[in-house]
Amino acid sequence: MPNDERLNDWLKERKARFNERRADELFERICQQDRAALSAGITLVESSRPEDRFEANKLLQLCLSQNKRAWRIGITGVPGVGKSTFIESFGNYILQHKQSLAVLAIDPSSNVSGGSILGDKTRMETLSNNERVFIRPTAAGTTLGGVARHTREAIILCEAAGFEVIFIETVGVGQSETIVHSMVDFFLLLMLAGAGDELQGMKRGIMEMADGMIITKADGENIQKSNWARREYANALHLFPPKENDWITHVHTASSLKGEGFEDIWKNIDSFFNRMNHSGWITENRKRQELAILEEMMRSLLQSVFFSNDRWMEKYHAVEEQVKLGNILAYQAAEELFREFRAGGC
Amino acid sequence: MPNDERLNDWLKERKARFNERRADELFERICQQDRAALSAGITLVESSRPEDRFEANKLLQLCLSQNKRAWRIGITGVPGVGKSTFIESFGNYILQHKQSLAVLAIDPSSNVSGGSILGDKTRMETLSNNERVFIRPTAAGTTLGGVARHTREAIILCEAAGFEVIFIETVGVGQSETIVHSMVDFFLLLMLAGAGDELQGMKRGIMEMADGMIITKADGENIQKSNWARREYANALHLFPPKENDWITHVHTASSLKGEGFEDIWKNIDSFFNRMNHSGWITENRKRQELAILEEMMRSLLQSVFFSNDRWMEKYHAVEEQVKLGNILAYQAAEELFREFRAGGC
Repeated sequence: MPNDERLNDWLKERKARFNERRADELFERICQQDRAALSAGITLVESSRPEDRFEANKLLQLCLSQNKRAWRIGITGVPGVGKSTFIESFGNYILQHKQSLAVLAIDPSSNVSGGSILGDKTRMETLSNNERVFIRPTAAGTTLGGVARHTREAIILCEAAGFEVIFIETVGVGQSETIVHSMVDFFLLLMLAGAGDELQGMKRGIMEMADGMIITKADGENIQKSNWARREYANALHLFPPKENDWITHVHTASSLKGEGFEDIWKNIDSFFNRMNHSGWITENRKRQELAILEEMMRSLLQSVFFSNDRWMEKYHAVEEQVKLGNILAYQAAEELFREFRAGGC
Repeated sequence: MPNDERLNDWLKERKARFNERRADELFERICQQDRAALSAGITLVESSRPEDRFEANKLLQLCLSQNKRAWRIGITGVPGVGKSTFIESFGNYILQHKQSLAVLAIDPSSNVSGGSILGDKTRMETLSNNERVFIRPTAAGTTLGGVARHTREAIILCEAAGFEVIFIETVGVGQSETIVHSMVDFFLLLMLAGAGDELQGMKRGIMEMADGMIITKADGENIQKSNWARREYANALHLFPPKENDWITHVHTASSLKGEGFEDIWKNIDSFFNRMNHSGWITENRKRQELAILEEMMRSLLQSVFFSNDRWMEKYHAVEEQVKLGNILAYQAAEELFREFRAGGC
């Protein structure tokens, strides 16, 4: 009965895959730096299937218990600033000092991970062929917390796997810088030397978030412009109030093409982690980041009871119409709708 | 029985006060431009007593049905920029063209209204003695929505009273600019001419919100600096993407002391309202503002079920401790706590 055999094979393979996904085994293999297991683990935590969530939470719990720590470094900058080239080039430089590097790309606008993986691996050719490097974009998925949650959890898995440095790269635009900032220890902002309008075109808030700034493409005819831009930015940074951890943001120039400027950047980041580990700031900051997520997640979940319910959303849209017509003020309308919602046993 | 008499008097007076507060009567008197009634009406909508809320909602409903419209103009700027002096001076100028002016001051940091009222009236002496002007600060209160709600509702009452122009002044700092922006048609940003660092010290987002900018204190030795600052800001504004209503933000200079620059500002604001009323943008924008409040208020109310409950907050703080210790990830902790909350019949 060849058909039965095939079915048996299929069942066996399916069971094997299921076992492979089980938290205990995945955890053991992740701790042995098994990259396939790390990949499978990240896929597991990205899964929106309830049965996967149980195993995913178990895996995360196990990984947390390891209490291993990587340098979590966020890297952001406008499209065209050369993020990928910088990561490829500076990533290779960092591997002279550190054993291993994970690159997680965060893209809130994307719901497909397949294309991006290929994209990232092509963009970072030498890194992706290096066995000490792990590259993985985050799929946005549909769970509450979305891409931020997936990336956050992927960090925990990479740390358990013993990666010493984790780059979290912003691929998207808009809110993603803030998301990345909320999950890293060191926030690196890449900038282009413009033509005299250095302070334009970027959000003020982002400069204030930066722990380090790099003027990219500082080579050839660009060198003078880049040095000038560096001074401009450094001056602008002076006007910000001092950071709570007393860190002073440096502005560097770098050429990813020629590999220039990397030593200064490395020394700066190294001294940041030395100082901030010593002062206990990194531990404190990670606690604060987690507490902020707890609150945000709780608030989202509480809202979802109403906003994810079709019946209530229908009523809500009817109320919106009344508000649009000016028949009722929004505050009062919300209060009345909320009272109805509560009376209905929420 | 003098005691009984006194009690009767007290009851009579109390009933009179109650009647005076009744929505129908207040509404009638407000429509007759009775300022005492307008004041009483605002006090009523600011009240946090449930029995007052019923009458307050009724009053607001009646006022909305009037469908009267004022120019809603937000005025903001850092402390020291001269907001009060400008409002005093420009307010008097505007009364050459318009019949009446209401000034609402918004201060999210203040919970007391008594002091501020006195303060405002002292700061704006000629305005507060003008019978065509109504000045009122907003008490923050304790209701959900807080100062924004109170100011928003005071606007409706002032419009029903027939005021042609309403200034909403930001007294506080931080979030208040955004709050004010969400309730006005025209957003006026006052600026000081600095010493070459015009682009520093103010949030980028605020400049993008502005429909008009004014360099204040453009008199005496300050004139040259002010003109220079005006050009700087005008250049900076060019770099922003065009507004959705195609309005181009102008930068003016003005001296509140000498009353200079007011004609240009007046013409600019007048042409804004002419164009935006004609295009229907003001109607559309007000609808959008109300819908945004509806959603925000609904979200706040949904969260309050948990975050305003002592028993749940106790559990929440216990979970926070676990998260701080690194025993559990925030996402998972939130999900588990939420599940418990839901199981408890929320």
